[in-house]
Amino acid sequence: MSTPPAPANLMEALVSLCKRRGFIFPSSDIYGGLNGFFDYGPLGVEMKNNIKAAWWRDFVQRRDDMVGLDSSIIHHPTTWKASGHVDNFTDPLVDCKVSKQRYRADQLFFAAVVVEPEGGGDRQVIGYVSALEGDRTDAELQEKAEQLKRKKAVRGKLLALEARDMTAAKPEEIALIPSPATGEPGSLTPPRSFNMMFQTYVGALRDDTAVAYLRPETAQGIFINFKNVLDTGRVKVPFGIAQVGKAFRNEINPRNFTFRSREFEQMEIEYFIAPDADWQKCHRDWIAAGLAWLDSVGVPRALLSEYAHPKEKLSHYSKGTVDIMFKFPFGVQELWGFAARGDFDLTQHQKCSGKSMEYFDEATKTKYVPHVVEPSVGVDRIFLAAICAAYAEDEAPDEKGKLEKRVVLRLSPRLAPVKVAVLPLVKNKPELVAFAQQLHAKLQRKVVSFYDQSGAVGRRYRRQDEIGTPWCATVDFDTLANGTFTLRDRDTMKQERIDEKALFALLDERLT
Amino acid sequence: MSTPPAPANLMEALVSLCKRRGFIFPSSDIYGGLNGFFDYGPLGVEMKNNIKAAWWRDFVQRRDDMVGLDSSIIHHPTTWKASGHVDNFTDPLVDCKVSKQRYRADQLFFAAVVVEPEGGGDRQVIGYVSALEGDRTDAELQEKAEQLKRKKAVRGKLLALEARDMTAAKPEEIALIPSPATGEPGSLTPPRSFNMMFQTYVGALRDDTAVAYLRPETAQGIFINFKNVLDTGRVKVPFGIAQVGKAFRNEINPRNFTFRSREFEQMEIEYFIAPDADWQKCHRDWIAAGLAWLDSVGVPRALLSEYAHPKEKLSHYSKGTVDIMFKFPFGVQELWGFAARGDFDLTQHQKCSGKSMEYFDEATKTKYVPHVVEPSVGVDRIFLAAICAAYAEDEAPDEKGKLEKRVVLRLSPRLAPVKVAVLPLVKNKPELVAFAQQLHAKLQRKVVSFYDQSGAVGRRYRRQDEIGTPWCATVDFDTLANGTFTLRDRDTMKQERIDEKALFALLDERLT
Repeated sequence: MSTPPAPANLMEALVSLCKRRGFIFPSSDIYGGLNGFFDYGPLGVEMKNNIKAAWWRDFVQRRDDMVGLDSSIIHHPTTWKASGHVDNFTDPLVDCKVSKQRYRADQLFFAAVVVEPEGGGDRQVIGYVSALEGDRTDAELQEKAEQLKRKKAVRGKLLALEARDMTAAKPEEIALIPSPATGEPGSLTPPRSFNMMFQTYVGALRDDTAVAYLRPETAQGIFINFKNVLDTGRVKVPFGIAQVGKAFRNEINPRNFTFRSREFEQMEIEYFIAPDADWQKCHRDWIAAGLAWLDSVGVPRALLSEYAHPKEKLSHYSKGTVDIMFKFPFGVQELWGFAARGDFDLTQHQKCSGKSMEYFDEATKTKYVPHVVEPSVGVDRIFLAAICAAYAEDEAPDEKGKLEKRVVLRLSPRLAPVKVAVLPLVKNKPELVAFAQQLHAKLQRKVVSFYDQSGAVGRRYRRQDEIGTPWCATVDFDTLANGTFTLRDRDTMKQERIDEKALFALLDERLT
Repeated sequence: MSTPPAPANLMEALVSLCKRRGFIFPSSDIYGGLNGFFDYGPLGVEMKNNIKAAWWRDFVQRRDDMVGLDSSIIHHPTTWKASGHVDNFTDPLVDCKVSKQRYRADQLFFAAVVVEPEGGGDRQVIGYVSALEGDRTDAELQEKAEQLKRKKAVRGKLLALEARDMTAAKPEEIALIPSPATGEPGSLTPPRSFNMMFQTYVGALRDDTAVAYLRPETAQGIFINFKNVLDTGRVKVPFGIAQVGKAFRNEINPRNFTFRSREFEQMEIEYFIAPDADWQKCHRDWIAAGLAWLDSVGVPRALLSEYAHPKEKLSHYSKGTVDIMFKFPFGVQELWGFAARGDFDLTQHQKCSGKSMEYFDEATKTKYVPHVVEPSVGVDRIFLAAICAAYAEDEAPDEKGKLEKRVVLRLSPRLAPVKVAVLPLVKNKPELVAFAQQLHAKLQRKVVSFYDQSGAVGRRYRRQDEIGTPWCATVDFDTLANGTFTLRDRDTMKQERIDEKALFALLDERLT
């Protein structure tokens, strides 16, 4: 029945729906926006809170081996020296000195244009061409190479281009590669490391002693509190510490709506195990838990895949990293990372702080620095994946029974921003309105309920479908006789008559 | 019964309890801490989340005239130009060029030391003295003045000192006022404005065009989204937009534990009303709602007072500000501010963005920029007030009936981090343990439950009392016969036998 539109349209339709109905606005919209920042509107904040609450309930409150934490966004700067972020959390960056444009060096491609003279002779480099990463990078380089050959009026055979990105440019080539902004060579700088942490100053001084960073991840806040949490005496290895909170990365090129933004919210766990524990099993268990949880909140298995990072690309301390990937409209991309990080982080903090990070194991009477498995996911990415998976267009009958296009968000009830809409069949019958308002008031004590009396009932259903409200309770004339009302299911559009008690029981069952 | 310790001890006792049991840790503890930043531990994060959830449920989800929002922490910088923060969100600052110490000018006091010669003659200024704000400021100035007179061997009568703070120093006086750090004059600078916003750079550039700020309040994120929220079509004036989120202020002098910190979390509402509406009534209603809510979460009326800001100290646009004050151990301080701000903010953003902030009122067919009443409170302050109000020391019988000192947090059940502890009477009876674990597992589906089998039951009660757990369910031998267990009340220490169904009903009633 459901016929999702083509991927390109889907993102457009989603972004438009998100703004129109109040899920997500571009940040600072009235000032022309701020690239890489987003604001969640009235419905968006409810859904985002639902994601965080469901994750926290399932992974922290319902488990005996987990505790939570909420560390500050600004840490002591040595944290980021110890973790390696000050030295290594960088992107390679190339400037165009003329246009003042900046490029990620690994997203800027170039090639030497080589011509083999007619009738033989030495091959000749007649110049360079460049193009930005994209679907047409190779085609664009080829076109530009042919243009260059015509312009220089060189005769002979154009050899196949060998595209490289700017991180692979030789020093003597830099000055010869044209800037994508101007088309002329000479203005690009050699790639330099650009640290992606946002920097600020704490206190009244503005010098090196006052530098601090906005955390680029929530994980380190867990590691630096490992000892404090141990000292509360509530935990025994194996156990995990979970944290939900904002993190910041000064991305050169934010893109794909909220997928790669500069300010985002993470849900991270550091799960501490003994050094000789079976880390592969622990790793595998967490991946399985992640997949099961995603399914439970409406991100179905069919849209997910796994990607194991190749061994040779892992950091020296990493034992293995697997990402759960989601099929976004703009491609298959990382949703949830599961990294086995060994004892790297705790050992680094032990070294830099001079404080022991050892755990004394009562059972084995041994002391060790635990190893960790780190499941790490973005709230905004879960949000985006859930809304992508939920979006559907189908048909529903209007008042006269004629089929009309319907947009519906098939969100899981736990994530849906509004749980029930209460609708009096007509608004000019005081008894119906009074019953509906009372029902709404009772529901509002427990869940997010929305009261709506304006317009034809079919139109009101459609408004709720579009924001993913799982159930509509319609109060009609029979209600006055026996206290029952119709409950319409968003997905099947079927209605059944139930009473208040049955509705509360249903909500209790489906929302916890 | 309850005999709270003296105020000075209370803060010490609280800070120590907070760290030991995992409510609040100093941020970046292993690196010596970072002044003005704090981390919430396993119990603290639960309690903090409970505060936010209770506030959101009561002020947003349970009202039809409120919607939520979650805007980014970094806004377009023009936001802060429009709001006045770039120009006016400053503290006056004085440097000591020798010691490199920095002082808030309004917290650094000084006085001219004037002597009237014996036997008459002109009064003579023999020098200046200075002291930092505190309980002993005047006494300290007096002592220093007498010292100076002795040191200079001046005879005559020391006149009464007239203390002023550094913002009132005349230019010619600055060089004569001794630095509190060195005791010598000549090193203090004239007061200069120090902007309290944390500054950073967004994007790869580091120049004026890239400057951005961490929001010093959540309120402006609401104003700049006013139009976007209107456009979702869900709201009609009067209505409010609520936001919970982190804010940052680069305080020169963070103090009083979490009370004045550099990173904190706000819960703010902008309530929009017609320009000719009765703003005093709206203002009064919100103050009353604030007082009632505080009482409902265990911050009792007896510890609260109101402070109306004097008219002459208000900003030109402000119609009135009232603060709910709480009697903290370190003094009566602001807890919740209620400001009637007129149309200042929306008008400023209209001016700076060129976008209309007008609302079309369907009922009166008029267009206007709404006025606002702004209730604004800090999550961390509610946390601190609740824990200050809850802390008590009394006596409880130990196993042998001997009275022992007991520390108890009388937190309201909605805020308590753990709702129920489940305790098998003894741990070496598998049937008791199995029943208790099953009960714990069932409870854990709904609330935060803690299972504890280690130590004497009295000791386990004491551990729960100290973290504010309202109820302990103890599974004993009678349980195996009839399924009932004892439920101990934290505050009365009385026990009654109930069954599972009754326990769930109690939790449902007391926690929503």
